[in-house]
Parts: sequence; structure tokens; C-alpha cells
Amino acid sequence: MKGSDTKDRLLRAGLDQMSVGGLSGVTLGRLASASGLSKSGLFAHFRSKEQLQTDLLDWVAQTAERLVVAPAMEAEKGLPRLAALLSLWLGWPARAGLSGGCPVAAALFELDDLDGEVRAHAQRLEEKWRTLLRGLVAEAVEEGHLSAGLDVDQFVWELCGIYLAHHVSSRFLRDDAAGARARTAFDALVRQAQAEAGTAIDG
Amino acid sequence: MKGSDTKDRLLRAGLDQMSVGGLSGVTLGRLASASGLSKSGLFAHFRSKEQLQTDLLDWVAQTAERLVVAPAMEAEKGLPRLAALLSLWLGWPARAGLSGGCPVAAALFELDDLDGEVRAHAQRLEEKWRTLLRGLVAEAVEEGHLSAGLDVDQFVWELCGIYLAHHVSSRFLRDDAAGARARTAFDALVRQAQAEAGTAIDG
Repeated sequence: MKGSDTKDRLLRAGLDQMSVGGLSGVTLGRLASASGLSKSGLFAHFRSKEQLQTDLLDWVAQTAERLVVAPAMEAEKGLPRLAALLSLWLGWPARAGLSGGCPVAAALFELDDLDGEVRAHAQRLEEKWRTLLRGLVAEAVEEGHLSAGLDVDQFVWELCGIYLAHHVSSRFLRDDAAGARARTAFDALVRQAQAEAGTAIDG
Repeated sequence: MKGSDTKDRLLRAGLDQMSVGGLSGVTLGRLASASGLSKSGLFAHFRSKEQLQTDLLDWVAQTAERLVVAPAMEAEKGLPRLAALLSLWLGWPARAGLSGGCPVAAALFELDDLDGEVRAHAQRLEEKWRTLLRGLVAEAVEEGHLSAGLDVDQFVWELCGIYLAHHVSSRFLRDDAAGARARTAFDALVRQAQAEAGTAIDG
């Protein structure tokens, strides 16, 4: 097996551990047990626990790009694309074959009070994700699907709240209504963003 | 020092560790180091790591009761009380003297994919908290401050989303606008809950 295949396999195993037990659940020792490699064998691929953890976060971002962003881009520009992205974003870890929840959502609460390279890396990824969301919301404004006077940052902030509330209700409370609640909340957010002063209807 | 004083001191130290490192950051070994007691000394107070963790979650609930719920009850019944509760809820860990974020919010993401007594205990506390919120929202409906046709469960679901979004933006992204964004989101949620079909104005 090529080195890159081995690394992919290791990251896949680490990602599954992370999705269940959080970043702190992933260590070189535990990954060695799961993969059957020795710890020194792992060092050929990851120099430190921190490098393993940042590589895992990058893998999450790439997986979300493939399973959430790329298919959403097939939808029509503006509100349809934003709605498609949300549908694909909600519950994406199961479609990625992960045993647990969204590793980034968990990292936002796990790393908030820590400092260091892993936190800084997670923060860059989260900012990049929110920048993507802001771009899609701004496009929906340009297309006249949302009000011209919309506070795009506020919209994205509330959209992230819907994602987090859905994560808690579906995964922690195991509430079957989680998906329907998220859609109702998104529809209300959109209606409000269409009704605000300075809508495309006025302009 | 009496046994109950010692236990309080231990729980206080454990709570601070939990607020920074999550439930998995609290172990009898680490608490022994922080308190200067031996691990066998700790066993007089906690029979297991699980009992320590459920006791800590109870302590969080009692602290929130004292610092968030009790003062909110001083506000006028209905919407003023609900708004007061949200203001006291946002950022309460700092007022409780904790070094980190909300231990319950972190537990919702840390425990979601696990099973066992600690998760079941956290779920009971979260359900109890949401029942309290539903009661306050229902009171605001009864007082005519929110629409008579309001979906109270949906309102509470979205309110929890605002709390979670605020937690991420204030603690993880360290965004100074987090408080203002949460208030804007709450005001929009209230306006929408006043505009829905079947408002008190119609009835």
C-alpha cells in the first residue's frame, strides 16, 4: 500500500474517533491501536498529536467541500443554492459515514477555552466556512431573493444558530422533529430577510 | 473543615476544570492534584468518575438556578421575564466565576455520541431547562405579549439556537459583537412570534 493510501486510511480512522469522542479522543496511541500500526510507524505520517488533529480538521473541511458545497453549487444561484446548502449541511456527518456528530461543531465547544495551533486552525476553518455562507447570502441579495438592506453578517450568525440547534436536537436530544424544526426556522429567517426595509421590491 | 465544605470546594474546583476542558477534562486523578487530597480521600465524596461528573452537572444546574433563573423571576411576568432570563443566561459562566464556557453547552456536543448515566443525566437537565423555557414562553402568550397561535416548542428551539450561536461567537470566535447579535436575533424572533396568525390582537 502506498504511503498516501496509508495516510488516508489513518485519517479516516482518526476522523471516526474524533466524530465520537472529540479532538481529545484522538491520540497517536489510540490511532496506533485502531490501525494496527506502531506509534513509531505513525510518526512517518504525523509528527505530533497537534499535526494529526489539524490534518483531521482539514480532512473534515475537504469532506464537507465534496459532500455539502459541491452538490449545493448545482442548484440555481441565490436563495435556491443557499437552501440546498443548508439541506446538505444538516446531518452531513452521517452521509460522510461518520459514527458521530459534526467534528467541527464539537471542536467549537471543545477548543473555545484553549489556545494553540489546533484552536487557531479550527478558527481559520470556521471563518472560511462563514465567509462561504456570507457569499451565498450576498448572492441571494444580488439576485433579488433577499432584501437589499439585509444585514448579511446577522443572517449568517442566525443560520449558524439553526445548524447548532439542529445538531443538539438531532444528536443529543435525539428528537425526530429536528429536521422539520430547522426547516421552519430557516423559512422564518428567509421571510424576515425578505420583509426588511430596502427589499428588492422597493429598489 | 466539615465534610460538606470540602465537597463544595472539590465541586468548585472540578467545575472550573470542566468549564475549560469539558467533562472528559475532569477525572478523580486531576481533581486530587488540584485539591491536594489523595485519590482515596476523594472516594469519601465521589464513588466514581461518573458520580463526580453527574454531581458537577447538578452543581451547574443549581448555579444557573441561582444566577439566571431566580433574578429573572424578579422581572414582570411574560415577555419582560423571558427577555430578562435570556440576558442573564448569555455569558452566565463568567458571572459564576468560571474560567471557561458553559459546561452544559459543551456537554451537549461532548456526550452526544456516548451512552451511559452521565449522558442520561445531562439529557434530563437539558429537558428540564427547556421545560422551564417553554413555561416562560407560554406565560408570555397568556399575557398577550406573544401570538396566541405561537408554536411554543419551535420558539424555544430557536431560542436555544441563539444561545448556542452566542456561545460560539463570543467564546470561540471571540467576537465583541456577539451580545448585540444575540439581542437582534431575539428581537426578530419576538417580532415574528407577535406577527404570526392568531395573535392576541386578533383574539
